[in-house]
Amino acid sequence: MFYIKDASEYIGKEVKIRGWLYNKRSSGSIKFLLIRDGTGIMQGIMIESELDPQVFSKFDDLTQESSLKVTGTIREDKRAPGGYEITIKDVEIYQIADEYPITPKSHGTNFLLDHRHLWIRSKLQNAILNVRSELIQAIRDYFYQNGFAMVDSPILTKAIGEEAATLFETDYFDLGKASLAQTGQLYAEAAIFSLNKVYTFGPTFRAEKSKTRRHLIEFWMIEGEEAFYDNEMNMDLQEDLVEYFVQRVVERAHQHLETLERDISALEKVRKPFYRISYDECVEILKKNGSPIEWGQDLGGEDQTILSTHYDKPVFIYNFPKHAKAFYMKEHPENPDLVLCSDLFAPEGHGEIIGGSQREDDYDKLLNRIREEGLPEEAYGWYLDLRKYGSVPHSGFGLGLERTVGWVCGIEHVREAIPFPRLINRIYP
Amino acid sequence: MFYIKDASEYIGKEVKIRGWLYNKRSSGSIKFLLIRDGTGIMQGIMIESELDPQVFSKFDDLTQESSLKVTGTIREDKRAPGGYEITIKDVEIYQIADEYPITPKSHGTNFLLDHRHLWIRSKLQNAILNVRSELIQAIRDYFYQNGFAMVDSPILTKAIGEEAATLFETDYFDLGKASLAQTGQLYAEAAIFSLNKVYTFGPTFRAEKSKTRRHLIEFWMIEGEEAFYDNEMNMDLQEDLVEYFVQRVVERAHQHLETLERDISALEKVRKPFYRISYDECVEILKKNGSPIEWGQDLGGEDQTILSTHYDKPVFIYNFPKHAKAFYMKEHPENPDLVLCSDLFAPEGHGEIIGGSQREDDYDKLLNRIREEGLPEEAYGWYLDLRKYGSVPHSGFGLGLERTVGWVCGIEHVREAIPFPRLINRIYP
Repeated sequence: MFYIKDASEYIGKEVKIRGWLYNKRSSGSIKFLLIRDGTGIMQGIMIESELDPQVFSKFDDLTQESSLKVTGTIREDKRAPGGYEITIKDVEIYQIADEYPITPKSHGTNFLLDHRHLWIRSKLQNAILNVRSELIQAIRDYFYQNGFAMVDSPILTKAIGEEAATLFETDYFDLGKASLAQTGQLYAEAAIFSLNKVYTFGPTFRAEKSKTRRHLIEFWMIEGEEAFYDNEMNMDLQEDLVEYFVQRVVERAHQHLETLERDISALEKVRKPFYRISYDECVEILKKNGSPIEWGQDLGGEDQTILSTHYDKPVFIYNFPKHAKAFYMKEHPENPDLVLCSDLFAPEGHGEIIGGSQREDDYDKLLNRIREEGLPEEAYGWYLDLRKYGSVPHSGFGLGLERTVGWVCGIEHVREAIPFPRLINRIYP
Repeated sequence: MFYIKDASEYIGKEVKIRGWLYNKRSSGSIKFLLIRDGTGIMQGIMIESELDPQVFSKFDDLTQESSLKVTGTIREDKRAPGGYEITIKDVEIYQIADEYPITPKSHGTNFLLDHRHLWIRSKLQNAILNVRSELIQAIRDYFYQNGFAMVDSPILTKAIGEEAATLFETDYFDLGKASLAQTGQLYAEAAIFSLNKVYTFGPTFRAEKSKTRRHLIEFWMIEGEEAFYDNEMNMDLQEDLVEYFVQRVVERAHQHLETLERDISALEKVRKPFYRISYDECVEILKKNGSPIEWGQDLGGEDQTILSTHYDKPVFIYNFPKHAKAFYMKEHPENPDLVLCSDLFAPEGHGEIIGGSQREDDYDKLLNRIREEGLPEEAYGWYLDLRKYGSVPHSGFGLGLERTVGWVCGIEHVREAIPFPRLINRIYP
């Protein structure tokens, strides 16, 4: 089947384009159809003197988004959008579209989100979805080429996660309630004892009542977990991964970034080494830049923005205070108030994209932390087992897909970085 | 870092193996450690006369699954498991494991499933997870190389699925109940109008009280959806995909299939073209083979087994009776009692792995079917829109990952084809 993206291979040849009417205009006896087929947009030319009147008159019937098949010959034309045109010989209409709700005039975000199933057809949304698709494959290729096994962690679990307050629950037969996973990490930790280096890639859920540009109710997370890695090696790995997927998107999804008018030179700067700043130093920097943060607190949304605009490349903040972070992080061997961890912030104001840490591998310390946090001990029995039967130093990290897509595409709000966003007031379409 | 799988590149070199004790045996002044590191298993040799007594004595401390780092030199030895050995110079112990619950004696399935977080370390389970990982990447590579965009469909939806009776529900803020997705297909259909050919790859959920060897509560599904494809093209595509991933696993995960004692020659036969048999013909074949099926019914579990053992390659059964199948399938243009669809059955008794169909693209017919099935019309508003604004012929299919892993690995029950199975009586670990 012919696709518009392959036009350069078909110059002078007759092809059939199957697609949708994006726009049309008339110049007397010459008519122009702008046709999109999901792989590109191409201008079609209908010349009255060369066409059967019955074919020529179809121009008048075609409404925006009508589906059609045109037959014609591909010509190179530098002036045409995309560089190629089709001289139309025949037009077959699949369906004349009803009046399309999304018109060239601007619409409010709520209206567009209500029509997300149609909105994704627009040029910018199509470009974002293409970048997302390339990014996903790039991430998977990176792990595959670097000897990681792919492991799917379960979605339905027994309340084992990050924040008990934000769990979605469902009835699970005779076993009481099950919760939707907030992370696959704990299962990935079990898997390294079988497979050494693994990654998970799945949806995660937070029933969080926050409405910020960085939050979704349902989002996709990629979690790497590596046996025998300390936190330094973990940061090296993240740096290598991020450089790889950013440069790969620059290389292979270039035209989509251009459609989005993304500043590509900013992405080209994303090369190792990234900046690495200790939490202590970070607090000083934030205070100097007007943040009310006090030592001991985790970074807030505003702090993220400050850090993200302060640097021209991603920056790691490492070794946070223990009580600002999750229970599973490994205590710093020289300072029990700190844990061995790092957050990675994207530049240009995009905020945190990765949280990582070395994991607590000492049975007693881990059990203590579970009790301190008041977590349901019985649900963590299997997780504690991993520290009983051949515990090893290990580290891992979680990369938020939508925040990463948002950054790479240069868009403000994560809701456009996923095909069908779930927000606190939105579950349709 | 050195990994056992790379041993052939390190002959004569000193390396460090980080891993776990799989087994040990003693022959007087020579001790043998079988060490696994998640990428392979290697024998280590400790010779009393060449080692510090303090190092040599560590042999006695090591229990099954203890974690350790050994330093030594790699030697080629055809007699050794895997073909290489390490002559040990030093042993560093990370942790002496408590008495490991899974011993070489055989355990019941319930016991093993209760210890799934440890069971995955065993040789056979490790091999299955490696095959699964290779299979996932193969499927993604196929779609990537064939111009499909990857689209994630939402998990939390408004009761839009296949069977209302088997939905998991959860409270969704002020918007009432949300259900866990049973399929991503309907969203994939919306996405083809933006991206032409797409696939989804995500977890799906059925709160089904059936306990068969082919059912999981939570399982992963790959769904392809293609604009401008009819059901024939859809079958051609499935055939091409299945041949690709089976042959790729044979090629790249050969040693794991050998560990599983899989009959690889049966997989090598999985080449295009597959068999294609109409539903009508299929019913006759089943009746001859003792099935009580009557024309009009969908195939049961026993029917699947009959079909799956009857053929030495996958077989498509196409064009089922309309009322045995889902509402979205396209009515046969010459016989309104049938729909344009196909199920694909794996050979060797493994049953259905794919269900596919051309989709109903006529607004009125689709609306009728939604009403006939008593589905909540308002939840399907956006789906009906796809038939209003440039409807096109299109087709798609859903491939069940665990059934496919089960078939390729030659295992009986799908519960071993996923890292952490969810069954009606099991949500732990």
